[in-house]
Amino acid sequence: MSPTARVYGGVDLGGTKIQTAVVGARGKVLGEAREPTPTTGGPLAVAEAITLAMRQATLAADIDPGALTAIGVGSPGEVDEKAGTVAQARNVSGWDGAFPLGPALAEAFGTRVVLGNDVSVATRAEFELGAGKAYKSIIGVFWGTGVGGGLVLDGREWSGRGAAGEIGHMVVRIGGRRCGCGRRGCLEAYAGRASMEAKARRLVKQGEHTALFEIMEKRGRTRLTSGVWERALQDGDKMAGRLIDQAVEALGAGIASANNLLDVEAIVIGGGLGTKLGDPFVERIREAMMPHLFVDDRPPPLLLAALGDLSGAIGAALVAKAKPSG
Amino acid sequence: MSPTARVYGGVDLGGTKIQTAVVGARGKVLGEAREPTPTTGGPLAVAEAITLAMRQATLAADIDPGALTAIGVGSPGEVDEKAGTVAQARNVSGWDGAFPLGPALAEAFGTRVVLGNDVSVATRAEFELGAGKAYKSIIGVFWGTGVGGGLVLDGREWSGRGAAGEIGHMVVRIGGRRCGCGRRGCLEAYAGRASMEAKARRLVKQGEHTALFEIMEKRGRTRLTSGVWERALQDGDKMAGRLIDQAVEALGAGIASANNLLDVEAIVIGGGLGTKLGDPFVERIREAMMPHLFVDDRPPPLLLAALGDLSGAIGAALVAKAKPSG
Repeated sequence: MSPTARVYGGVDLGGTKIQTAVVGARGKVLGEAREPTPTTGGPLAVAEAITLAMRQATLAADIDPGALTAIGVGSPGEVDEKAGTVAQARNVSGWDGAFPLGPALAEAFGTRVVLGNDVSVATRAEFELGAGKAYKSIIGVFWGTGVGGGLVLDGREWSGRGAAGEIGHMVVRIGGRRCGCGRRGCLEAYAGRASMEAKARRLVKQGEHTALFEIMEKRGRTRLTSGVWERALQDGDKMAGRLIDQAVEALGAGIASANNLLDVEAIVIGGGLGTKLGDPFVERIREAMMPHLFVDDRPPPLLLAALGDLSGAIGAALVAKAKPSG
Repeated sequence: MSPTARVYGGVDLGGTKIQTAVVGARGKVLGEAREPTPTTGGPLAVAEAITLAMRQATLAADIDPGALTAIGVGSPGEVDEKAGTVAQARNVSGWDGAFPLGPALAEAFGTRVVLGNDVSVATRAEFELGAGKAYKSIIGVFWGTGVGGGLVLDGREWSGRGAAGEIGHMVVRIGGRRCGCGRRGCLEAYAGRASMEAKARRLVKQGEHTALFEIMEKRGRTRLTSGVWERALQDGDKMAGRLIDQAVEALGAGIASANNLLDVEAIVIGGGLGTKLGDPFVERIREAMMPHLFVDDRPPPLLLAALGDLSGAIGAALVAKAKPSG
């Protein structure tokens, strides 16, 4: 490694895990690491876990932690890019007020830190290096704990007044299922993993049977992870099958709605569940989209995210690379 | 009028009427006229009626028909801007195949003719000269026979691969009411005037009472026009009230969905029903939107189209003005 080579750190801060990557100037992943997101200790503990995971990725890349040209972080919650703070990261335990994550990491690594929205940076990575790289306009759909969306229109990220891309809160059924956001009938109320788990727990209370929670316990989990859903589907669990059917139906309708409005060149499906369930489910979502697509003689290709679990971390590194020091 | 002044003709081709305007270089309406859209005789008869209405507008503006610098046409159906043809204008009687509307008008007026999508040009007029002129990004929602949409993002029209803006075919209720497009649960299935009329006719067949069709006949109409709906609402007709309630609910959910995805600065409501029912209904749509809006502490203003029935014709003239001769 030449001492003048530019290398970038990328951090994807999720509710379950922290994924880091060291990325070269042309987007190549030189090393990566992951750590569970601390469930106690609040933002300080999370910042320490990020530091640890970032150091591990530099070890894997065989570079000195101090050699990172810049670090990018894709974060949930309200990101203040200028102040370097993150507030209301609700999927991260104990993170309510604004915490100066940028300055904390800048001090730990002696380099500049750039913050961005987790879904936006993942969409950017798929657009620049992943499944969307042949297209000029894409919608990124991240199917995981929630359902996030990112937009690239004519080569540029569209963020509106800062909050665009909330495809998970498009209404697919007026008066429908209650969403984690408190509203009714959102796409995420049917397809978000957190909502699907809540629904499964209600059905069990009503006396229905499922193997979902046994699989969860066997695996030492406290939540229905993507792997738990996958296993239950493989075992032919009826409740899991029905809830996933409803998720696919809602994703199909919501993605069709988004494309009827935007008519983009391609749609990329990522996120924990999207990545875990893979191509067969992208095909099922495509089939659920088609009946709602207004211009259905040239549907946009639905593509599985090519960078998988790494799209967030890579996208964060790309943002760090693109942003001039300041 | 100086002999060198540039004046533009604008045509809004609707299923019920043809609206024309003569517009000055700075967007001022110098004259306007309207003619009913012929229901027999196909595209040729329509082209003749457009020619007549355009001549009447030049008379009203006190200019020679040959003095128009260019003519713009906002049309439904599939518009081929290069060839100057319109095909599949389904709301216009007998218009299935491609008809060379541009060349026909160019010959009649001895000037160049520019074709555009009816909803896109109306959105452009509201953005440049109407309710949206203080903003950089807007969604235009045209509530009439159907529900059309137009997008301006960061000052530029967003048309995707040519078919963006179909807000009327966003899904607001999976498995819901059948839409005129053949699909289920579209916003337009609840809020489009054609769908509302079809629903009212079904309810009457099922034995329900309404004054809608009596009002229609008294006015010598064959369809439930915006004026008929307005009258029935004023008379307290229960079926009309219920169907309009459902339309408002669907518009609120659909507009919230669109804004959750795009997070624009303002939303403009126009179209025949929007313009006729006016501000009190824009307020009702706003109230129906709020419960579904994801970022609800800074909702985008919902504004009544400022150019009313003329937004389409003015927008068409603006397109003619912007497009270099060729």
